[in-house]
Amino acid sequence: MTDQEYMEFAIQLAQTARGRTSPNPLVGAVLVKDNRIVGFGAHLKAGTPHAEVHAVRMAGDEVQGSTLYVTLEPCSHFGRTPPCADLVVQSGIRSVHIAMADPNPLVAGSGIRRIQEAGIPVFVGLCEASARIMNEVFIKNMTTQLPFVAVKTAATLDGKIATATGDSKWITGEEARRFVHQLRDQFDGIMVGVGTVMQDNPQLTTRLPEGGRNPLRIVVDPNLRAVASNPSLHVFDTKLAPAAVLCREDLCNSQAARQLRSMGCQIIGLPMREGQPNVLDLEYGLRKLWQEHHLASILVEGGSALNGHLLQQSLIDKLFLFYAPKLIGASAAPGSFGGMGVETVQEAWCVKQMEIKQLGRDLCLIGYL
Amino acid sequence: MTDQEYMEFAIQLAQTARGRTSPNPLVGAVLVKDNRIVGFGAHLKAGTPHAEVHAVRMAGDEVQGSTLYVTLEPCSHFGRTPPCADLVVQSGIRSVHIAMADPNPLVAGSGIRRIQEAGIPVFVGLCEASARIMNEVFIKNMTTQLPFVAVKTAATLDGKIATATGDSKWITGEEARRFVHQLRDQFDGIMVGVGTVMQDNPQLTTRLPEGGRNPLRIVVDPNLRAVASNPSLHVFDTKLAPAAVLCREDLCNSQAARQLRSMGCQIIGLPMREGQPNVLDLEYGLRKLWQEHHLASILVEGGSALNGHLLQQSLIDKLFLFYAPKLIGASAAPGSFGGMGVETVQEAWCVKQMEIKQLGRDLCLIGYL
Repeated sequence: MTDQEYMEFAIQLAQTARGRTSPNPLVGAVLVKDNRIVGFGAHLKAGTPHAEVHAVRMAGDEVQGSTLYVTLEPCSHFGRTPPCADLVVQSGIRSVHIAMADPNPLVAGSGIRRIQEAGIPVFVGLCEASARIMNEVFIKNMTTQLPFVAVKTAATLDGKIATATGDSKWITGEEARRFVHQLRDQFDGIMVGVGTVMQDNPQLTTRLPEGGRNPLRIVVDPNLRAVASNPSLHVFDTKLAPAAVLCREDLCNSQAARQLRSMGCQIIGLPMREGQPNVLDLEYGLRKLWQEHHLASILVEGGSALNGHLLQQSLIDKLFLFYAPKLIGASAAPGSFGGMGVETVQEAWCVKQMEIKQLGRDLCLIGYL
Repeated sequence: MTDQEYMEFAIQLAQTARGRTSPNPLVGAVLVKDNRIVGFGAHLKAGTPHAEVHAVRMAGDEVQGSTLYVTLEPCSHFGRTPPCADLVVQSGIRSVHIAMADPNPLVAGSGIRRIQEAGIPVFVGLCEASARIMNEVFIKNMTTQLPFVAVKTAATLDGKIATATGDSKWITGEEARRFVHQLRDQFDGIMVGVGTVMQDNPQLTTRLPEGGRNPLRIVVDPNLRAVASNPSLHVFDTKLAPAAVLCREDLCNSQAARQLRSMGCQIIGLPMREGQPNVLDLEYGLRKLWQEHHLASILVEGGSALNGHLLQQSLIDKLFLFYAPKLIGASAAPGSFGGMGVETVQEAWCVKQMEIKQLGRDLCLIGYL
């Protein structure tokens, strides 16, 4: 096997914990000696050993003189576990391949330096592109102190997410809906607008045949309209899954807020956007969700108004745009992104690295903003 | 070569005249004797010899005892050329493979019968699916006495064909726009709504590096608003290409109509739809365009209102839906299909046989209604 193949194996190992390591990154490690794998590991869950630790343990005495392939720069700080850079040095590892440096600008390079200072050669950048895609969430968190935000929409080919009367069951078919549940399983939070909650009364839980993890359900409801209209909406049923509501700061102690709290929902008050007294500062909200609630990634499931606000506030990282082979054909039916939009086509937001997936009769376009 | 390969070759020959045989079908013919092709031909233009005639001429004496592979049932009537069924019988052809029977319910089977009655075996159905797709326009014409109608849209991923201010230049990239000119070259007519004409002032001509055929430009303008607003709009410039305007019957002799006629435009008056005093009966208009103007196929290039009306009136056969990797993000920006739409998702129009094409950074979804 080549250096690249060992690193690809390390990446593959890291991926097996997808959706389970938050807020930590996905990391895989492989130890090789005399062209033979002597140990490997992956980081499986925050608070449990890092990938390098598992690999070193598996290798036992054979770690001496081996080469380490690891998908991320070994840590150099004491967290819940001792620094992996020290472990590398102490284990007698002879050389190290790292796919990518730590994206946290405060620590980047310090793990590498510690290993290099011990006289061990370090090579950085093998399979870096794949490693960066794998850890797009962690990179976003570390570089911006914000959660990674993906918006999922399900529209007809004429861009409608519901009919003019509000019916939306079901735009997409079973395979697409199953894929959405797989996505929910991988995100820490799932966000919807008050309109969607009141119109569709969704559960927003992860329903997969094999089980799955429920994300925190986050309702953006500036004026706390939803609970007033119907306190028994599924999204407020915290026996199903945890729930949080983002609302105007001044409503945090309102009767509606107290009612929600008594039902087990968290209330997160947000200021309004500067110069837009009717629009919540969603960036402030996202920052709070990352810093105080440790949500590394959020899947937004609309509708139109919330998607539009996130787009306008440049808070969207990734798109999962589902299209069903149908036409609704109505000016009044809502589209996937509401709001004010741009004035000229030249100013439109560009979707990059677009990838097409077929799911049954539906399409999914995956891209980045 | 197998029977199927000979028929596939006949289909390939037929396709070479795409966009040039209207209102006639595409037809290819191959003559085979002792496992050797002895003649072949295609119908190239209405009024010129049929495919079988070219093939028989090429074969000369070798037509005796040969097998004919022809993509469509040979004609049995005297048109501008004598019946091909008679030619087959008189030429000494020994057997005949036909991909599909004539779709015209009035003549279907009579050519086959004439050949069979002469004692020549006839096999129908080889490569029938491909032959039917190739002649989708002709089949529509013959079975409904209406032109084949394809709608082309160019939208962003959120389904917008322009910004809220009306800007639409350019949603799609150069490769997609070039493909549209190739489409125009293959359609007899190109139809737009008055809104698009007044907003964008398009030329609607076929502009390809290698030249091309200009379709008849058809403006749907019930109240003849466009010429009143600006008589020098490109679409009324009949030096560029011919033009026709569909309007309310009672405006056929109005001053605006007389002005358009003096500029060389045809005026086609239409009744309103029963029970909808503000909506033109577009089916009536399409029937007239086929029966009186011999337009076998029409490419509709929107906008929103015209597409919506055609959808509501169930007049669309095929869709070319272009998507650019962009988001406009505005509730007020027009979508590709306006109108009243359906009330529930279950009633939505289904798009069948969807095919995906990548054109530069844009996508084109091709399907049928």
